[in-house]
Amino acid sequence: MRYATVIDPTRPHEPRAAVLRDGTWHALGDGDLCTLLASGALAAGSTPPVGAAIEGAVPVNPLPAPTKVVCCGLNYGDHIAETGRERPRFPTLFPKYADTLVGPTDDVVLPAGVEADWEAELAVVVGAPLRRASRDEAAAAVLGYTVANDVSVRDWQRRTLEWFQGKAWDATTPLGPVVVTPDEVDPAAGLTISCRVNGVEVQRDSTATLVFDSVELLAYISTFTVLRPGDVVLTGTPGGIGMTRDPAWYLADGDVVETEVEGIGVLRNTVRLTD
Amino acid sequence: MRYATVIDPTRPHEPRAAVLRDGTWHALGDGDLCTLLASGALAAGSTPPVGAAIEGAVPVNPLPAPTKVVCCGLNYGDHIAETGRERPRFPTLFPKYADTLVGPTDDVVLPAGVEADWEAELAVVVGAPLRRASRDEAAAAVLGYTVANDVSVRDWQRRTLEWFQGKAWDATTPLGPVVVTPDEVDPAAGLTISCRVNGVEVQRDSTATLVFDSVELLAYISTFTVLRPGDVVLTGTPGGIGMTRDPAWYLADGDVVETEVEGIGVLRNTVRLTD
Repeated sequence: MRYATVIDPTRPHEPRAAVLRDGTWHALGDGDLCTLLASGALAAGSTPPVGAAIEGAVPVNPLPAPTKVVCCGLNYGDHIAETGRERPRFPTLFPKYADTLVGPTDDVVLPAGVEADWEAELAVVVGAPLRRASRDEAAAAVLGYTVANDVSVRDWQRRTLEWFQGKAWDATTPLGPVVVTPDEVDPAAGLTISCRVNGVEVQRDSTATLVFDSVELLAYISTFTVLRPGDVVLTGTPGGIGMTRDPAWYLADGDVVETEVEGIGVLRNTVRLTD
Repeated sequence: MRYATVIDPTRPHEPRAAVLRDGTWHALGDGDLCTLLASGALAAGSTPPVGAAIEGAVPVNPLPAPTKVVCCGLNYGDHIAETGRERPRFPTLFPKYADTLVGPTDDVVLPAGVEADWEAELAVVVGAPLRRASRDEAAAAVLGYTVANDVSVRDWQRRTLEWFQGKAWDATTPLGPVVVTPDEVDPAAGLTISCRVNGVEVQRDSTATLVFDSVELLAYISTFTVLRPGDVVLTGTPGGIGMTRDPAWYLADGDVVETEVEGIGVLRNTVRLTD
């Protein structure tokens, strides 16, 4: 199953949950995916009645209102190596907000002069409440997988020990375009994840090389805080970020960043350093 | 003005916003303080019509549903010294969730065996939307001040570079008991902040010695993410935490932690390491 939150051109101000059937987006209830998940109408492993086809549907940010967005850093071997760190015993976690997210084709707008960097990531979407979950419980609670770019403001990230202030700039983390259920994609078996800047490939790896996989991350996080349907966990980025290159390579105004995970889709976002 | 969210014994399942008048809590609308602030009925510098007295009102967590809870670490000189660090140029920020908060007399429940530590803090409550705010705009948006204890799970905090997983355990950060408006208390002029464990004083300092004051923190955070009415910023803890003592002193099952800020009030919470 492929879920999205889409804009129906006949109701442009009401983003709607939708499911892809025979190449066409069909409505699922009246709210967006977060609304549907919060209401229980959509859950991991179950889909509500499928409504009418939406002609000209355009996927937007699939999850506009998660209660929690948790990210894992240092989770691919080559990225750990490029930051000069050792393979971690525990996941390095930091959060973003619902406010941090934008849609799959939205501009990423930041102030002129900041050191903006790319981080292609696989994201996992929670489809059932999780608290102190076992690995099996966490696996059963996965609604599906989507694509994210944990665009990072490196100069702010480096200002202090805690990365948060470089990671939580409003409307800078593209998400989408679709959420694909685990029966269709298996990140543990290996999906190619890649990032391109103005067409030049800067990251490429396989999700099979994650140190902590999606299910492990959900179970671990649920030890200290509840996860709810619609929450999102970003699983970390592979090697190839701009900051650790020599010389460092940061995003410029007008750059086009494409972020892709095999079997899910592509985010295509233009960077605007004009805020 | 002193605001709270209280339990009215005649409507025990509906926490209500209230204001103190002549020593008695009076109702302010029907929801809790967050509901009232989100609706705009209560804002920095303005109070809605005061309703009837609530006999036997008991203050609970004043802010049960902030959209953001942001904390500043390393913000008092003696605490910076005890952690062996230098006076920072920028605030060290990390977040908690609404789920992390509990009320002023609630138990703090954690699993047996964790290294639980105290951190008495002054908290500032946002009373108007803030985005890229100047210091003056931030000052005008302060609804008031309350007391918090950033109870920290040190073994989890030390697992990785990022403190988040030691700071965001559900229902472990006491908040309250009241929110006092800036015309009644001035943290910049100096309020005594203290913490006692089983009656033994473990922290005492003045809020006048904060490196980054409440208003500075609001303005700084609003550079990268919007703050909304009802959001809470914890301003950091003074010296005297348990982790840096020799030997380290962690909270035990049954310990009573009292957290006090002069002119605001006292939190009194029992630690239960039984979760």
